[in-house]
This record gives sequence, structure tokens and C-alpha cells, in this order.
Amino acid sequence: MKPQRLSNISTPALVIDLSVMENNIRLMAQAFASGPCKLRPHFKAHKTPEIARRQLAAGSCVGITCATVGEAEVAAGLCDDVLIANEVLGNDKCRRVAALAKSIDVKVAVDSEQGLREISMAARDANSEVGVLVEVNIGFRAGTQPGQPAAALAQRVAETDGVRLRGLMGYEGAAMGIPERDKREAAARAAVGRLLVSVTAVSDAGLPCEIVSAGGTGTYDITGRMEGVTEIQAGSYVLMDTEYAKQDLPFAKAFWVLGTVISRPGATTVTADCGHKSCTQDHGMPQVKDLPGATVMFLADEHAMIGVPPGCSLGPGDRVALWPSHIDPTINLHDMIYVAEGEHVVDVWPVAARGYIEQRRES
Amino acid sequence: MKPQRLSNISTPALVIDLSVMENNIRLMAQAFASGPCKLRPHFKAHKTPEIARRQLAAGSCVGITCATVGEAEVAAGLCDDVLIANEVLGNDKCRRVAALAKSIDVKVAVDSEQGLREISMAARDANSEVGVLVEVNIGFRAGTQPGQPAAALAQRVAETDGVRLRGLMGYEGAAMGIPERDKREAAARAAVGRLLVSVTAVSDAGLPCEIVSAGGTGTYDITGRMEGVTEIQAGSYVLMDTEYAKQDLPFAKAFWVLGTVISRPGATTVTADCGHKSCTQDHGMPQVKDLPGATVMFLADEHAMIGVPPGCSLGPGDRVALWPSHIDPTINLHDMIYVAEGEHVVDVWPVAARGYIEQRRES
Repeated sequence: MKPQRLSNISTPALVIDLSVMENNIRLMAQAFASGPCKLRPHFKAHKTPEIARRQLAAGSCVGITCATVGEAEVAAGLCDDVLIANEVLGNDKCRRVAALAKSIDVKVAVDSEQGLREISMAARDANSEVGVLVEVNIGFRAGTQPGQPAAALAQRVAETDGVRLRGLMGYEGAAMGIPERDKREAAARAAVGRLLVSVTAVSDAGLPCEIVSAGGTGTYDITGRMEGVTEIQAGSYVLMDTEYAKQDLPFAKAFWVLGTVISRPGATTVTADCGHKSCTQDHGMPQVKDLPGATVMFLADEHAMIGVPPGCSLGPGDRVALWPSHIDPTINLHDMIYVAEGEHVVDVWPVAARGYIEQRRES
Repeated sequence: MKPQRLSNISTPALVIDLSVMENNIRLMAQAFASGPCKLRPHFKAHKTPEIARRQLAAGSCVGITCATVGEAEVAAGLCDDVLIANEVLGNDKCRRVAALAKSIDVKVAVDSEQGLREISMAARDANSEVGVLVEVNIGFRAGTQPGQPAAALAQRVAETDGVRLRGLMGYEGAAMGIPERDKREAAARAAVGRLLVSVTAVSDAGLPCEIVSAGGTGTYDITGRMEGVTEIQAGSYVLMDTEYAKQDLPFAKAFWVLGTVISRPGATTVTADCGHKSCTQDHGMPQVKDLPGATVMFLADEHAMIGVPPGCSLGPGDRVALWPSHIDPTINLHDMIYVAEGEHVVDVWPVAARGYIEQRRES
């Protein structure tokens, strides 16, 4: 790679402030250095092997969390302990998981008889064994009912060939985004309590439950301190976004979308080339970095319409940077990330697990 | 490609109903078969060469519209007349446009002195000539002021080496999404009127104005019938989405996101694997195809939470399909599209211009 400065890279582009990111990684590793609960950083947040490598190298990690089979296939190149924190259904995907299980310790979530049937059949066909966490519904997304229903499904997993019961998982998603610490803590404790009730039911049934996986960036030091939780699936802490920045977290925003002003259509508006095909708005509008009084008013595919104060001199050709409201889907729009130290681009990292990698094999 | 059925492809996946798409293409080509105004279909909608080829083959087209330089580089393999309907700033991107101009007729939008300076310098450096349409602000996105300011900038283009004045463009974006025909028509006529006033000013100054480009799917038969408009930049008509389906258009929805149910966490909720990393919500929630009474309640990265009627039998392993609210960013999330005739997958088309192709060269 030829040396570059941020001022001459093509836009729109993703930029990481390397030292801020490394500090986030260090802080999170320290938070899990002592105590029984460890970290399983979520790969879906960035899909970028170079970031995951640094997360693992910082310590306190038991493995990697993934959301999709494709992510797990990429993560398998980095780590021999991968949790797909999601139900996997469909013959093709179950076959891919069963193949992965021949070389690494891979676990999937199961919350239904059908899910159990599909993954166990694929594992038996491949002559491999896939780890299973029973997902418990402690929010709104997925999972079997807490308590006895969870224990009953765990029992079914334990008696099924091709799979091995490893424990339980849940995601207290409804708590994750609450800005006020006390309300977030109360919501997380209530939700994760339903997971822990299920752990008791499973243990009372004499079944193994070595892994109890939950948590995220918003609850890492709440859920991560609840007795019985063994690992936390946080992802966003590594780069942060404007939504998590509303919380009392020690992590700092390390990542932005760099754009170029292409038009100044009005006295108090500029238009830049970083629309929602480069910076998503699913958690709200991005914020403008280093430009007090500027606000993103509207995103079109390839246009960001930004309101600026009347005296603002920003014009065509100038750079502008947006702090995304949600890093996961924003990074997923790009093939690479520029890594900066100050104005200098010191590296370029591929977003290797972007999209659905099976589609790239197909086409 | 081995023969496949929709029931055994991996999800989430994009699916095109080939005959419905071909009918949309035919209808739009017919609409521009006679009359002075022609079609310049917008490549940003799908970024898929196989679709653009069929649009061009159906006739009535003067060329292709693109939003980015990367799209234009891909489109140059299909057609020798490409409009980048957007200001292009930044040395790298201007150099790429100047290089393209050596082999095809490429035009860019210009709305500022800085934009004119950058593209003309790159063209002179490359010893090529880039076509220019002065963009007029007829909405909120970009453009110089209508009338005399537009004519003054056109004059500057005409006297600048490396570029050639080809005409004017504007985008009546504020009119495009209005569901009621009469209101949409009034808004489009008012906006495009400001473009046509500028055409008069340019012509009165003795400057050439052979191209007057505007329009979209919502206004193709309004703007496309206004005297002086020479071409329409419609894109969405080819596959349609739930937003445009609210209008009185003759085009039908030809495209959906196929998902798999992974969980049934409640009596009236199912969760599928098609979240907002596979189907965007920037124009609102997608709709559920072929399942009366079902509604998408929430999209997470890899989860679609769908409310279903109490008696609905949908469960883990079943397929579900979502009609996107906006095709452009949804397609941009994928690397390929499955092409279906009924249940049969008859082809697989790469979304070759997905994302920012310069990033794939870099990484």
C-alpha cells in the first residue's frame, strides 16, 4: 500500500482512529481480566478480521460471537471457538456449520424442535458434532420460554445425536439502548434473571450448562457481573456510535464515515457524497463530526444533506465526516476500512465477512 | 450453475420474478417509443449489468444514468453513453472520469466553480474531454440557482478547456414520492418548470443545450411529456417497491427478499433471518408477501420480527418473503440476485457495481 493521507483518499470511506480503537479494546479486556465472566466479542459489529485479531490478542476472550454462518467461516480463520448466537435453519447453512465443526469448536443457538432436527441431521451426515446453546426468550427476538420449557428443550438436545448441549444464551436487547444507567440496569437484570432461572431449571434436571452467554456493549458491566453468566457478547464498544455514546460508557467513538462536499445548494445547506448507501440511518441520523451547529437533515442514496450555520465556509471539495448512529450496518456497506493515525493512513483492512459470503461463491 | 429451486437456496437472498421484470421493462420502453423524450435508465437502482442490458435492448434508451463513478465504470462495459447524474469532486474520482471519457461519451453534473475546476483539470491532464450538464436546483439536493445563475455557470463551462457543455439537469425529488397523481403532477411541473426556465436562459445566451435530463419512476409520464425535456432518469420501475406501488403506475413489484423463519418466539410473532442487513427500512418497513395479516414489526441486523395472525402455522424452517420499501439500498447489500420463473431459479446475476468498487481495488 502506498502511503496516503486522509485528505487524498476517495470518498465515501470508513475511517478508524487506531489509538482510540485500541484504547477501547484495552478497556474492555481489563473489565474482564478478573472475575469468572469473560468476553466473546461480536464479529457482526465490524466483520473485519484485523479488528477481531486485536480483540483476541488483548486477552480476556473465550472466543468470537457471530451472527451468521458466513461470519463464522471467516472467524474460524482467527479462533477455534466460535458461537453463532443465532438459530441456523436451512440445509445449506446447517451443512456449512457441520463442516466447520470438524475443525473448530462451533456452537449454534437452538430454540425449536425443527432447529434441533436440522442441525443434528447435518452434523450426523457430516460425522461431526455441533455445540448447542438453547436460546431463551428474554426479550423480543427469539428463544424458547424461560424455565421449564428451556430445560425441556435442553433435555431434547442432550439426548440427540450429532449435537452436544453446552449451555444457554439470551439477549437482553430491550435493555441495551436505554440511555439512563439505572433504568438500563433494572431492565437488564430483569431480563437476564429469566435466563438464570432457566440455568437453574437445566441444572436441576442434571444437564450440563457450562456456557451462559448474554450481554452487549450497553450491559457488559451489568450482565457481566451477574452470578452465573459466563460470557458477554459485546461488539459495538470497539468502535462505538452515537447511540451508545449517549450512555455512561468508558469507550470513545473511534470510527466515522468520511465524505466530500459536492454542492452548496443554499446559504445554510451543504450536500456531501455520504448518503445512506455509505452510512445507515436505522438508529437515527448520523452526527456531523468537528462542525458545531451542523446537522444531517436528510440522507438519500448517495447524498447527505447537511444544515450548517450561516457563516460556515464549507463548500464543494471540502471534507466532512459523519459519526454513524449504528456501526454494524454501516460497516457492512463497505469493502474496506482506512486505518488512521492522525491524518496518516497507516493501514487498509478488508471487511472480509461483509454481506453474505455464500453469494460471492455463487456468482 | 446447477439447477435450483427457490426452496433450496440459502437465505437471505434477493429474488427477481423474471417475467414481471421483463414486462416492466417493455412497458417503460413503449412509453418512450414515440415522442422526443427518451429514457436513460438509472443504474443505481440495481447495479446489475444483466438488468441494464435488458433495459437497453428493449429500446427507447439514449444511454445509462449512474450515481457514482464506480457505477459508470461498470456501465461503460454495457453502453457508450453514460451520465453521472451527480457532481464529481476529488482528484481520484475526477481522474477516473477523465480516463473513462477516452473510450465512451461520459457526462457529469456540475453546479459550482470548484466542481468545474476539478473535472476540467483532470480532463486536461488526461488529454480527454468530459461532457457537462449544469445541475439546476429544482428541489433540495444540489444544483445552482435556476435562470440566470444557471446560464452564467453554463457560460463558464463553455469557455473552459477539457469540458464540453452538453445541457442541463435537475431532479424533482420532492415530487417523486407523492402518492396522489394530481399533487405529484403539480409538484413535478412546478419543479421542472424551474429547469426549463434555465434552458431558456442558456439558449438565450447562445449556448448549446442538447440534453435536458430529469425525472424518475414517479414522474416519467409527467416530466417526460414536458416540452424541452429530452430524457428521463427512471430506475425503480424495473423492479418496483412498496413505496412506488402506492402510485398509479403500470409497473408491478418484481423483486423480494427471501428469508427463512428461524424462531416462533410467541403465539403471534415469528422471526426470520432477513433483517436490515438484507432489506433496508429507509423508506419504511418492508411488507410481507403472500401472507395476509402479517406485518413486519421490527428489523434488527439479522432478524425480521413479524407479527402474524393467531392461527398462522408459519414456523422454524418455513420460508417468508419481504417486499422492500426501497430497492436501491436493499440490492446494494447483496452480491447477487437469484432470477426466478415460478419456483425455478433460471439464472444468478452479479450485482457487479455494488458498494464502492474502488474499495475492492484497494483491499
